[in-house]
Amino acid sequence: MISEKLKPLMANNSVIRAMFEEGTKMREKYGKDNVYDFSLGNPNVPVPPQVNEAMIRLLQKSEPDIHAYMNNAGFPEVREIVANSINKDHGTNFDKGNIIMTCGAAGGINVALNVIMNPGDEVLIFVPFFLEYIWHVNNVDGKIIRVKTDKNFMPDLEDFESKITDKTRVLLLNSPNNPTGVVYPAEVIAAISEILTKKQKEFNRTMFILSDEPYRELAYEGTVVPYVTKYYPNTIVAYSFSKTLSLPGERIGYLVIPSEMEEAQLVFDTASNANRILGFINAPSLIQKVIGECIDAKVDVEYYDRNRLALYNMITELGFECIKPTGAFYLFMKSPMEDDKAFVELAKKYRLLLVSGAAFGSPGYVRLAYCVSYETILNAKESFQKLAEETL
Amino acid sequence: MISEKLKPLMANNSVIRAMFEEGTKMREKYGKDNVYDFSLGNPNVPVPPQVNEAMIRLLQKSEPDIHAYMNNAGFPEVREIVANSINKDHGTNFDKGNIIMTCGAAGGINVALNVIMNPGDEVLIFVPFFLEYIWHVNNVDGKIIRVKTDKNFMPDLEDFESKITDKTRVLLLNSPNNPTGVVYPAEVIAAISEILTKKQKEFNRTMFILSDEPYRELAYEGTVVPYVTKYYPNTIVAYSFSKTLSLPGERIGYLVIPSEMEEAQLVFDTASNANRILGFINAPSLIQKVIGECIDAKVDVEYYDRNRLALYNMITELGFECIKPTGAFYLFMKSPMEDDKAFVELAKKYRLLLVSGAAFGSPGYVRLAYCVSYETILNAKESFQKLAEETL
Repeated sequence: MISEKLKPLMANNSVIRAMFEEGTKMREKYGKDNVYDFSLGNPNVPVPPQVNEAMIRLLQKSEPDIHAYMNNAGFPEVREIVANSINKDHGTNFDKGNIIMTCGAAGGINVALNVIMNPGDEVLIFVPFFLEYIWHVNNVDGKIIRVKTDKNFMPDLEDFESKITDKTRVLLLNSPNNPTGVVYPAEVIAAISEILTKKQKEFNRTMFILSDEPYRELAYEGTVVPYVTKYYPNTIVAYSFSKTLSLPGERIGYLVIPSEMEEAQLVFDTASNANRILGFINAPSLIQKVIGECIDAKVDVEYYDRNRLALYNMITELGFECIKPTGAFYLFMKSPMEDDKAFVELAKKYRLLLVSGAAFGSPGYVRLAYCVSYETILNAKESFQKLAEETL
Repeated sequence: MISEKLKPLMANNSVIRAMFEEGTKMREKYGKDNVYDFSLGNPNVPVPPQVNEAMIRLLQKSEPDIHAYMNNAGFPEVREIVANSINKDHGTNFDKGNIIMTCGAAGGINVALNVIMNPGDEVLIFVPFFLEYIWHVNNVDGKIIRVKTDKNFMPDLEDFESKITDKTRVLLLNSPNNPTGVVYPAEVIAAISEILTKKQKEFNRTMFILSDEPYRELAYEGTVVPYVTKYYPNTIVAYSFSKTLSLPGERIGYLVIPSEMEEAQLVFDTASNANRILGFINAPSLIQKVIGECIDAKVDVEYYDRNRLALYNMITELGFECIKPTGAFYLFMKSPMEDDKAFVELAKKYRLLLVSGAAFGSPGYVRLAYCVSYETILNAKESFQKLAEETL
């Protein structure tokens, strides 16, 4: 009944989502406050008040275009505001002609891949990585090539260089990273760019960086997240407001296509049209307008930072091994049991929901999403303690 | 630089959209009120007041889930309300397990085609048809097979039957129809279903109807729009609130997957996941909640009906030939010049924007979208008169 392409999807359904369902059942059984769910990247920090205020204001003014079609790329004035905001923060030189409003980063990634990929083209990704990239690449009949990282989850540049071939089309980059929480520093981005520039020449073939940046604003300890287009012109940035404004259900983000890219105008126009024909048509209209009014709003990053330190200190003091992340809202902890799936199962005994590292291509680890309430972290201590006693 | 698959898109960009851009330029030159733009299906009737009121109410209550992720299929309570509403109107027997909230009908169509199509599968469509179906079918590497209609734009059932092969997978149906405005009566739907049922057996192959119904609520003169799942169980309905509630920019609609379908649960689950992995993730959250509160709201259909009669009477009195449509908001007028593109060009001289029938696979006609203000129709009279004098 269903397409050959989607059959594996149903056979191998998202582990994280399955966990979400299981979490629901456990909450029903033990009570909401007695289940410590670190499994899902669903932000728990409130939406900044400006967002709902702006939305109400726009609805009360009720200008005729708030729910209407607009250019496939989005409202021009909103795109200009987005461009100016990036310029202010990163010293870039974008205008509305570089910005396409999208249905979140996932929408943007699919648009970008549809524009630049042909079947069989290879997409390099540093391991571990967000599971759903597999599906996005599968949507365009591409092939994922996994590239190693070192013990701190930083790109293994030698492995990266060796895996670039005449089939390579995209490096799919994700920093701050899901699931590790690491941020790639400027030197790493510069080194990656240098290798890609060399390889483009060697193979006489355009190669892109697709930089997936839903966690860009979530960086701690003064960590700088380099703006990739400044290092490598053939970069498309996919951004989402899901985490920055805590509204993942609203599906709002954007693509950046810099003018320095080869044939930038063609790529931009094709992406605008792809946004339409893939079925998105345009990013939802009212929330676009809200972005235009709230471009400087941001969730309380301090809240995540406090969670990060509380959880990191708790688990490392108990003896678990984990590198200290400086971005996103994930910890990638070493599984004390060789079989990380067995460890995840065991953790459920203590009503702790974690995700197996195998789901991110890195068995031997587990992911903890700390976008939960601070109290959840404090209350989970006894469970982590018991888990430590049983496994360490 | 861009994918082989999207190259034809850019070479052959949407005629309607190009017209939209041209309309903008003409409005700048001649003034908004002196350009009679019948080219775009962008609803001009206001959003029902309940919609913005419900949205403000939800924002003021500010429950934590209004902007959050939910099940890929949408909020369960909203899906239940949608199911009950269809049941009430059409005597069906759906529940939330039959409904997937989508990013408009275009999102739903893409999800459905991804679920049921394999590369090379054939999609039958009655001509004329909405241009963008070409792209939706192209997204899944399918092949469009054009099926004839008669002089009243009703399906030619003989041609339909003859074009069903062992490659046929989908009949893509659109009633009320864009661009003709015709509604297929129950006997036609029944006859189509009978043919498909026979052919499924003959070729031992599941064949679907994908019923694209953004204009379902826009039917005039008491015309009944049959509910297709009642005639043929392997039917997927793609619905949109864009026209019913005049909010095309918000991207909200749903798919119906009836339980009577073969392997209905598998199709439903796969479609829910496809909604996610194609990049939609889920239909936008707040507007889903609004649908739950405003399921009985509807734009002022009388407004469209008045436009329909005014424009139909005006052009036929001037001598143009056109069948009287009973649905949607389009008139499909015979071009008095053999070359409909030349006629569209000529019409611009009188500041009339029409769309060539060639864009819908039916040269020799032009489409007039009457989802404009009533005044636009009245004011366009002199221009139509001059056009009649010059061409009839």
